Amino acid sequence: MHNSSNMEMENEINKELTDSFAMKGGEGPDSYAQNSSYQRTAIEDAKRLIQEAIANHLDPKTLTGKIYCIADLGCSTGLNAFLAVQDIVEAIELQYQSQGLAAQIPEFQVFFNDQIANDFNTLFRTLPVNRKYFAFGVPGSFYGRLFPSESLHFVHSSSALHWLSKVPKEITDRNSSAWNKGRIHYLNAPKEVAEAYATQHRKDLDTFLHARAQEIVSNGLLAIQMVASSDVIPDSDFKPGMELELLGSCLVDMAKVGLVSEEQLDSFNVPICYSPVKDVKEIIERNGHFSIQRMEALNLESFYAALNVEILVSWCRALLEQSIEKQFGRGIIDELFNRFSKKLVEFSNILRPEKPETVHLFVLLKRKHKA
Amino acid sequence: MHNSSNMEMENEINKELTDSFAMKGGEGPDSYAQNSSYQRTAIEDAKRLIQEAIANHLDPKTLTGKIYCIADLGCSTGLNAFLAVQDIVEAIELQYQSQGLAAQIPEFQVFFNDQIANDFNTLFRTLPVNRKYFAFGVPGSFYGRLFPSESLHFVHSSSALHWLSKVPKEITDRNSSAWNKGRIHYLNAPKEVAEAYATQHRKDLDTFLHARAQEIVSNGLLAIQMVASSDVIPDSDFKPGMELELLGSCLVDMAKVGLVSEEQLDSFNVPICYSPVKDVKEIIERNGHFSIQRMEALNLESFYAALNVEILVSWCRALLEQSIEKQFGRGIIDELFNRFSKKLVEFSNILRPEKPETVHLFVLLKRKHKA
Repeated sequence: MHNSSNMEMENEINKELTDSFAMKGGEGPDSYAQNSSYQRTAIEDAKRLIQEAIANHLDPKTLTGKIYCIADLGCSTGLNAFLAVQDIVEAIELQYQSQGLAAQIPEFQVFFNDQIANDFNTLFRTLPVNRKYFAFGVPGSFYGRLFPSESLHFVHSSSALHWLSKVPKEITDRNSSAWNKGRIHYLNAPKEVAEAYATQHRKDLDTFLHARAQEIVSNGLLAIQMVASSDVIPDSDFKPGMELELLGSCLVDMAKVGLVSEEQLDSFNVPICYSPVKDVKEIIERNGHFSIQRMEALNLESFYAALNVEILVSWCRALLEQSIEKQFGRGIIDELFNRFSKKLVEFSNILRPEKPETVHLFVLLKRKHKA
Repeated sequence: MHNSSNMEMENEINKELTDSFAMKGGEGPDSYAQNSSYQRTAIEDAKRLIQEAIANHLDPKTLTGKIYCIADLGCSTGLNAFLAVQDIVEAIELQYQSQGLAAQIPEFQVFFNDQIANDFNTLFRTLPVNRKYFAFGVPGSFYGRLFPSESLHFVHSSSALHWLSKVPKEITDRNSSAWNKGRIHYLNAPKEVAEAYATQHRKDLDTFLHARAQEIVSNGLLAIQMVASSDVIPDSDFKPGMELELLGSCLVDMAKVGLVSEEQLDSFNVPICYSPVKDVKEIIERNGHFSIQRMEALNLESFYAALNVEILVSWCRALLEQSIEKQFGRGIIDELFNRFSKKLVEFSNILRPEKPETVHLFVLLKRKHKA
C-alpha cells in the first residue's frame, strides 16, 4: 500500500526544488533547446547501446499487459529527450518484429520528467507530431518518487544525474570547515568542500536508485548517461570542473570591483558533481537493486572537435543563466559571460584537453527480480 | 494493436489546436485561475454526486492491479481540477475503508489534461503539496486519443465539453448560407449558423465518447459537467449565449467607429455550444458505449446570488481574452471589456434571469462491458 505521509514529504521536497537549477526554457538563442549539442552527441553515440540493450534484454513474452511504459528523467525542454525516446521505441518495435510478433507491439506511454521549474509549456509545444506514443509530463525531482510501484518498463536519464538534489548545506555555512568562500564549485577548494559534494552525490544517487527500484518492474531496464571523472586524472592542469572554476573566477573579479557582493558570491554554488567512475559503480553495487549490464564511456570526439569558445559560453549560459540571474540579478548576466568568454580565450587549451578528464558515462542497469 | 497512422493524424489535429481557445494562464488578476468561481460552485455541488457515484458503482474487488488511474480532461490551470480530483480520491479511499479493505487502497495516478496551449507551467507549480497521488500533465485535445487502451478507471471533465473542437468552417465562409456576418456566436443568427454549431457539437461529443470508450476499462466511470440549454427555453428575452451576444455587439460598435475591421469581426467566432439537454442525452445513447447512470442539473444558486457585472466581465475575460487578443490585437482589450461592462449595466437583468436558460449538467456514465 502506498504510504501517503512519505508522499507528502516528497512533495515538500519537490516544492523546495521548484526554484532551483532548471535549464533555460523557451526556444530563444540562449535557451537549453538551442544549446545542447554536447548532450545531443552523447545521445547519438548511445543509440547503438540502447539498441543492443533492448535486443539483449527485452523479452516480449514477459510483458504483462499491452502497454509499455518509458520514462525520461531530467528531460529539460525535450529536443534531446525526443531523440532518445524515439530510439527506444524503434528498438522495441524492431525486437517484436524480429521475433515475428509485429502484431503484438504494445502501445507506448512515455513520461517526460523534470523539475517543477522546467519549461513544460515549451516541451509540450515541440512534441514531435509523428510520434508513436502517448506523451505525458511529470513535474518533480527524480530524487524522490514520481511514479506508482512497478509501473515502468524502461527508464532513461541523460546528462542529469551529475546534478545534485541541492547544494550541500555546510558549504554555505561560514562556521563550517567546508565553507566554500570565494568559489562556486569544489575544484581547488579545501578538501572538505569536495567531500561535501561527494557525500551529497553518493546520497543522491542511492536515493535515485531506491526510488527507481520501486517504480521499475522486475527485469526492467534503466539506462543512465551522466558526466563522471576519469578514475585516473591525467597529471596536468586540467581537472574536472575547470570551466566552472573559470566562471567562478570571473565572479570573484566582479566582486573585487563591486559589481556583485561578496556575500552573494559566497552563498552561490553550482550543484554539479563529477564523481569518479569507480565511485558510481560502487554506489550502484552497494544499493543492490540493480545489476550492471554495461558501463562504458561514450565517444564525444565529434563534439570536442567542433568545440569553441562561443559554443562553450552558450552552453554554460543555457545551464546556469537562470540560477545566476536569481542569485545576482539580471543586470550582471551579459557582463559576466563577456568576461567568461575573454577568460576562455586566454585559457583556450581547456577546449582541447589531450586526454579528457571527464567521461560521459553510459550505464545500463537491470532491475533484479523482486521477491 | 495501436494504429500509428491514426495516432499521427490525431497529433496533427492537436497541433492545429495549439493556438486556439486556451484559458488565460498564470495567476494574475485576469487569469482563469482567479476567475473561475462559476466552475468552482459547480464542482462543489457535484461533490456529493461524485461520492454517490463511487459508493454505488466502484467495486474494489474488480480492480486488477494496484494502480487506480484518474484523468481530468480540460483541467485548465488546475485549481478547480485539484478540488475535483481530491473529492474523487477521498471517495475511493472511503469506499475501500467502508468495505474493510483499507490495506488495499491502490496508488493513484492522476492525469491533468488540456490543450497544448494551456499553461501547464502554472498548473505544475500550484499542484497541492499534500496530494495523495502521482500527478501528470497530458497535452492535447480531448477530441482525440490521449491515453492507451483500457488505461483509465475514472474520467472527469468539468466545464469543458460545451467548447467545440473548432469553429465550424462554413460560418466564416462568405459564400455559405451559414456565414455568420457581424456576430461572434449563434444567438439571433440565421438558423444555418445555429445548425452548424449544433452539428459540430454532435460530432465532437460523439468523437469524445469514442476516444474515451477505448481508454476507459469496462465498468469504468465518466463524470461530465457541462453547460447545456434548458430543453424548454422560457418565453423571455433571455436565451443561452446572451452574454456572448452582448460582447459581440460591443465589437460591432467598435467596427462601426473603425477600432476593429469588419473582416476581423466576421472571421471571429466563439466555439461554445449550449446544446439542449435532450440532445446531449440522445448523442450519448446513440454512441452506445456508455450507460447513463445519472443526469441532472447542478445547483448554482449561490453563484448566481453573488453574480455581478464585475464578476461576469472578469470571467468572460479569463475565458476569451487570449483568443480575442490573437484575433484583434492587444490594443483593443481594455476598450472592449470597458464597453462590455457598460452594456452589462444597461442590460443588468441578464444577471438575474428568473429561470436560467442554461443548466450546468452533471452526467454520470459507465463504460459498458467490453466483449
